[in-house]
Amino acid sequence: MERNIARLRERLAPLNVTLRPHLKTAKSVEIAQRVMASPQGPATVSTLKEAEFFAAAGVRDIIYAVGIAPWKLAKVIALRRQGVDLAVVLDTVEQAQAVAAASREAGDPIPALIEIDCDGHRAGVLPGDEDRLVAIGKALVEGAQLRGVLTHAGGSYAARGEEELRRRAEEERSSVVEAATILRNAGLPCPAVSVGSTPTAHHAVDLTGVTEVRAGVFVFFDLVMAGVGICKIEDIALSVLATVIGHQREKGWILVDAGWMAMSQDRGTAKQAVNQGYGIVCDSSGQPYDDLILADANQEHGIIMVRPGTDASLPELKIGDRVRILPNHACATGAQHRSYHVVHSASDIVHGEWQRFGGW
Amino acid sequence: MERNIARLRERLAPLNVTLRPHLKTAKSVEIAQRVMASPQGPATVSTLKEAEFFAAAGVRDIIYAVGIAPWKLAKVIALRRQGVDLAVVLDTVEQAQAVAAASREAGDPIPALIEIDCDGHRAGVLPGDEDRLVAIGKALVEGAQLRGVLTHAGGSYAARGEEELRRRAEEERSSVVEAATILRNAGLPCPAVSVGSTPTAHHAVDLTGVTEVRAGVFVFFDLVMAGVGICKIEDIALSVLATVIGHQREKGWILVDAGWMAMSQDRGTAKQAVNQGYGIVCDSSGQPYDDLILADANQEHGIIMVRPGTDASLPELKIGDRVRILPNHACATGAQHRSYHVVHSASDIVHGEWQRFGGW
Repeated sequence: MERNIARLRERLAPLNVTLRPHLKTAKSVEIAQRVMASPQGPATVSTLKEAEFFAAAGVRDIIYAVGIAPWKLAKVIALRRQGVDLAVVLDTVEQAQAVAAASREAGDPIPALIEIDCDGHRAGVLPGDEDRLVAIGKALVEGAQLRGVLTHAGGSYAARGEEELRRRAEEERSSVVEAATILRNAGLPCPAVSVGSTPTAHHAVDLTGVTEVRAGVFVFFDLVMAGVGICKIEDIALSVLATVIGHQREKGWILVDAGWMAMSQDRGTAKQAVNQGYGIVCDSSGQPYDDLILADANQEHGIIMVRPGTDASLPELKIGDRVRILPNHACATGAQHRSYHVVHSASDIVHGEWQRFGGW
Repeated sequence: MERNIARLRERLAPLNVTLRPHLKTAKSVEIAQRVMASPQGPATVSTLKEAEFFAAAGVRDIIYAVGIAPWKLAKVIALRRQGVDLAVVLDTVEQAQAVAAASREAGDPIPALIEIDCDGHRAGVLPGDEDRLVAIGKALVEGAQLRGVLTHAGGSYAARGEEELRRRAEEERSSVVEAATILRNAGLPCPAVSVGSTPTAHHAVDLTGVTEVRAGVFVFFDLVMAGVGICKIEDIALSVLATVIGHQREKGWILVDAGWMAMSQDRGTAKQAVNQGYGIVCDSSGQPYDDLILADANQEHGIIMVRPGTDASLPELKIGDRVRILPNHACATGAQHRSYHVVHSASDIVHGEWQRFGGW
């Protein structure tokens, strides 16, 4: 994990942007402290529960990067009254009007970023939609703050190869820069120009016009990121420790006590070149076995098999032996657990336990 | 929920079996108290954390229904010393020897059930494997207790139609009765003969020789169970309340603040006749919209669309409006939340909040 954090920091330093890590991946104060530039932030969150939790731990510069619903503004204002520079995200005039009205009522201009749709993936205004951008901006400045523009290249998870990843990063950059230019040309402020996804953060060559980069899963990495080519298997810093509880030898199955409750049901690699099932199986020190995967999972049962189509052999694992399973998606697997057990590389010794939280 | 519980109780009463509900679905003391025959049990659990949690709440008759790993026996003995009749499950001679050795050392004969593989689904001894059954039984009685035999017709989730479901229930019954007969003929005790899955519990016609039925998801039901034909959509007693946070009108998308973190990534209906995406979308009172599903999900974003291939129209939902989403798999969706908000049918008024727990 420490190597993954250092790697992204070093990569972004010459690009003249701030790293605003997304804390939704780990949801842990100890990890937030290691991934943020300072104990006060900056940071990105995906729920107001995260904002409340990290604010209580001293974080003071937070973007809540999921479109705001008007009823949540009371919580936003309460956090801002505690001294947190909490900004919201939106992509409609209705939301902008609601944020401006709440700001006026509270006597506190809530900062808002306009979400830009850089790749048709999810939410956001199209980068060249001048009418909508300016209308949102004008509605906001009637009481709230127009903090800037923000986008997320969610489509980059499906990209393959260095060239396409660099192209996705450039699309992400140019879309927010275009939107920022439209706002500024209309006489509106746009101090923040925010991009972010782990694949594009690791492939952007030029970030001219961008002020900050958000990324989350880079802290742990996972099999989906390895499949996209962003990391190697040995960079994955999160695993689930499981115990062998049975065999069905004639079927080539080893049963373990980690099912989908422990791994999550994320099957993100099923659409990639190599389907990793529910995860890659390693020995207890984290060394992967040849072509051994968690092929199927029930709530608390996992079925380990040799990857279909390979001639690797099933390792000799006895009942009670421990294995580590690398996850498809670190955000999803982490969410199934209440704490992290901290180990150094290739070691079984637990050096600490870091709590994580969940909920909304 | 109360109707679902009453329905299974009434169904099983004339079949002369005990209901031993599986508490892994809800992981809530309040729901356990409503689903168990008495505050002391009987109950089934899938983790020792559940056993510890429910034991602390007064439950005294528990089967831990996932194959036992030897290192967990210290926790089993600790719970038994608190007065809990906690039984374990196993399917190998090695496990039986470990349980017998731990029993002798503790001076406490731990009760164990031999798991039977009734449908090739997961763990267990084949019902007619006399040598293995008797070897396990003999290893157990050297210090531990042979409590009986247990099976789970996990394959019944893939069954379709009343006839096949009745056949699965009969296979489940006959497999454990066969194994029990083998043990008794070898002079071994076999007081408990335990079967269970929600589909078979709702379809068994004759349970001669069976002493108890385990079932879990019947308490809430879900879209997978509706797809198998075990319940109707209106029986589903668990939903996720979400807020509209945006639109992509040209794509026919409504965005809500419930993604896979709120729904889980269970896509169990994708293999059924009707793919429900991540869930069926209802108004805030729980009335389903026509052919409206949560078609896609990111961590905290959900995309609502009309079901492909239908001509239903997208309802007019404004930013801030609330919808309820019915889950594919209640066990998985429940696990994403820290508590239940209790509402009466077709009402938005929250009558209480019931905590749920997780972890291992």
